[in-house]
Order: sequence, then C-alpha cells, then structure tokens
Amino acid sequence: MINILIVGLGLIGGSYAKALKGFPDAVIYGADRNAETLQSALADGVIFQGAENADDIIENMDVVILCVTPDSAIDIINNSPIKKGALVTDVCGVKQYIADRIVNRDIDYIGGHPMAGKECDGYINSDAELFKNANYIVVSGENSTKEHIELLSRIIMYIGCKRITETDAANHDVMIAYTSQLMHVVAAALCDNECLDSAEAYSAGSLRDCTRVAKLNPDMWAELFIENRKELSAQIDIFTSSLKRIDSLIKASDREGIREYLKNTSDRKRRYLAEKEAFDGKSKQ
Amino acid sequence: MINILIVGLGLIGGSYAKALKGFPDAVIYGADRNAETLQSALADGVIFQGAENADDIIENMDVVILCVTPDSAIDIINNSPIKKGALVTDVCGVKQYIADRIVNRDIDYIGGHPMAGKECDGYINSDAELFKNANYIVVSGENSTKEHIELLSRIIMYIGCKRITETDAANHDVMIAYTSQLMHVVAAALCDNECLDSAEAYSAGSLRDCTRVAKLNPDMWAELFIENRKELSAQIDIFTSSLKRIDSLIKASDREGIREYLKNTSDRKRRYLAEKEAFDGKSKQ
Repeated sequence: MINILIVGLGLIGGSYAKALKGFPDAVIYGADRNAETLQSALADGVIFQGAENADDIIENMDVVILCVTPDSAIDIINNSPIKKGALVTDVCGVKQYIADRIVNRDIDYIGGHPMAGKECDGYINSDAELFKNANYIVVSGENSTKEHIELLSRIIMYIGCKRITETDAANHDVMIAYTSQLMHVVAAALCDNECLDSAEAYSAGSLRDCTRVAKLNPDMWAELFIENRKELSAQIDIFTSSLKRIDSLIKASDREGIREYLKNTSDRKRRYLAEKEAFDGKSKQ
Repeated sequence: MINILIVGLGLIGGSYAKALKGFPDAVIYGADRNAETLQSALADGVIFQGAENADDIIENMDVVILCVTPDSAIDIINNSPIKKGALVTDVCGVKQYIADRIVNRDIDYIGGHPMAGKECDGYINSDAELFKNANYIVVSGENSTKEHIELLSRIIMYIGCKRITETDAANHDVMIAYTSQLMHVVAAALCDNECLDSAEAYSAGSLRDCTRVAKLNPDMWAELFIENRKELSAQIDIFTSSLKRIDSLIKASDREGIREYLKNTSDRKRRYLAEKEAFDGKSKQ
C-alpha cells in the first residue's frame, strides 16, 4: 500500500483528495490547520485519517502532495520529518522560486502545476471534477526516479487531467507568466476604470470574458506575482509594446495597418485554437 | 400594416430578420447585395420579399433597419429614396461618427446598437436567438417622435433583448470604447506574443477568456476603431496607466500594494456582478 498525504485541503487540495478517491493500492491522508475542514474531509470519506499538523503523520508517507503556498511548501520540504526517498510534489504556480530554495536533498521533489482553478476558495468549494481535462505541468528534479515520475503521472491522469507536459522550472515560469499571470494582471487593470461602475447596460460578452478572472484571491496572487516578478514584468513589457503598436495605428487612422495587425493576431489565435482542437480530438480517440 | 426593411442580411441583419418573424401587423422585407443570401432568407421564410439593391424597394418602407457598416448606413440615409418621416435605425457600434454625417432631415433617424455578436459572420451564422437577453442602446434624434421611439422599443423587446438604455451619441461612444472596443484591442494585443504558439499545454481558462474576442473580423473592427479613435485611444491610455501602476508594484515586490490593488479591482468587479445579477433577477420577475 502507498500512503499518500495531501497537505492543505483547500480548493485545490480538497479537490485533489476527492479526485484521488479509489486510487489503486493507496491510502489517502490529509493535513489541514483547520479542524472543521479535516472533519468535513473525514465525514465525506475523502481522507482515511487527518492531522492538524502535517509533521505528526508525514514520516509514514510515501507520497506527499503539498497544496499550500510556495513559502509553506518550501518550509515543509526543508524542515518536516519526511521519509527519506519519498516522492514530494506541489501544486504551486511558480517553480524556479521553489527550486532555488529547497535544501533537503533526501527526498525526491518533483514540481507539479495543475492548470485548473475556480473563482472561489476553500474545501467547501472543492470538487472531484476540478481537474477534468486540465493540463498539468511537471518539473522533475535531478535525482527524480523513473518510478516516481511514472507514479506521479498515474496520479495526474487518475484525477482527470488530459495532458502532462514535462519542462524545466525556467520555461514553466515564462509560460505561466504569459498564460496565467499576465491574464490576471490584465483583468485587474481593466477593472481599474470608473467606466466599469456603469458598464452593465453597455456590455456584451467581451467585457465579461476579459475581466472574468479579476474576481481573484488578492493574497495568493500578490504572492505569485512577486515570486515570478522577473518573468511577469517581462510579459507586461511585451504586452505594453503590443498595445502601443496598435494604439499608434489607431491614432494615425491607419486602416490598412490596423487591418493587418488584427488579421495577424486573429490568425495566430485561430492557429492556437486549431492545435487545441486537434489535441482534444486525438485525446478523445 | 407596417413595412419593415432590413438592409444587409449578414450575421446581425439575418438574425434581426429571423427574430422579428411574427412581429404584429408587419411585413418584413430584406435587401442584400448577395443574391444567394436573399434566396436563403426567402427560402427560410424570414423575409416576404427581397431586393439586391435597397433603393428598389426602400420608398415603400415605414421602418428601415440598417445592418451595414457606418459608411454604408450614412450613404443610404443621405442618398436613398426613403419615404419622408420614415423611422430609420441602424445597429452600428459608433454613434457620433454617424450623427455628424447625416444631412437628410426628412426622415426620423434613431441610432441603435444591440450589444450582441458572435465570432463568425454571414447569414449562414445568423440566429433568431442572437439578441436573447442582450442590452440595446438607443440614441434618439432631435426630431424623433414618441410613436417611433415606442415602436422601436417594441421591436427591440420582441427580438429578445432584456434592457433598452437611452443615451446620447457622445456617452454611447465613451462607454462602448471601454466595454467593447478596448476589450477587442486587449485581446488582439495579448495574441501579439510568440508564447501563444506553444501556450496550449500551459493554459487554463484565463488565456482562453481574455483572448476570446481576438478571433474577430479585421475589416469591421479596423473601421470601428478609426471611427471612434478619440474615445478608444483615451481608454487605451487609462488602461496603460493602470497597467503601469500594477507593474511598478510588482517590480518593487510591494506585496501590500499589490494586495490592495487587487482587492480594489476585484471588489469593483464584484460590485459590477452584483448589480448585473440584481437587474437580471428583477427582469425575470
């Protein structure tokens, strides 16, 4: 039997525990500082046993899934009595920041990042279907064993993900700065406008979609933005230059230039969608 | 009987004609330069009679709904043999540009703008449900009669809209520069990034949502951007300043500052959503 501990039973950790239910030859444990959350998870049958302090049960675990903030994950990896050689993974949205701070070389740390979320928090909102058809990024360490990479892959597919991508921490952080963090910065900045207060009668779908993720958790995102600030700022720079380019064309009433700009960007979006559809089609076969 | 002519049976005009089917005491006519489109509309029973040239039938019409570009709408209003006193309306995304160019004072022009669309074009994609629960902006002229405003309102509610807002051309253009045009500029500029080409494996919902409207019609949007360039550029300036504000906080690792920024913008978004829900709730009663 494999003992799996999920630390932090919030939206992501709670969903992870629920989605892992029935994973072959495994027992699922949970740790959460909130006693009520633990009780709910026990009552729901999603964990076999719980602890308010992960350190009380962590030494018997073969797999530890850290569903906590990057700083807490680093603290647990470096300071908790984790069994030597255990597979430890996390779900954090930054990877280089964590890799740079891990000093415990006795465990097998494989970074993980499920590309799934919701506009709400907590165990109460957790959902066994959260990872359905999601992408999952894996960043293996220098000493990661083939067995652990295979085990983590089985776990990821079991919880419902559609695709696992292996990359390094640096590339993960560049791509996530673009696909996720920049989008949250843009959504927030679009809401920093008094027009929003009277926009409802004047809006169709585009305002709703471009600002959907503006309803976010400020604490969590402030931390992610700072921990990946170099890559995120670089992405904001690229975006600001793009914005300047189209703004200059608009100011100059350059119809041909605007058309060409919009044709290029819409074609790029179409190619992206075509690749996505091709992958989704293949993965359904 | 009221004779209603829809000029331009593309996505919007075709949907308008389909949604108007059965409007009491009215006969629906259609004009479109494309003979195939006319034949489809006749075969579908959404128009009673059609013409490739609007001028051939426009003089018998009591209501003319112009579902064409702003320049074409201006040309028809000023140069076609429209019956004196007829109600003429349009569906264009700019209003001041049109108002400034109308010289025909013999008709009753009431500007209209249904806040509905799709990421595709043409009669083939038109849909009787397109306007369902949409907002509709109305800009009445100096000489608009009460009867015409009432008739247009009945038409708008009949095609399925949830709310009619009356305003002037200048305010319409400011609000639309924000709620619609800025969002299309942002979506396009976000796609002007080579990261998009390999983004699919690294993306969750935020990239998809923020760039949804990037797959647009370059000709139409280039025209709209230029015709409302003053207001749109002002909105791009406001947005660029907002972006700079949060970027400075990120560059400075100012955790408290980022948190406060994100809290303010997410609260503003929440208030917007609460107002929207309150209106939607009321309109269902």
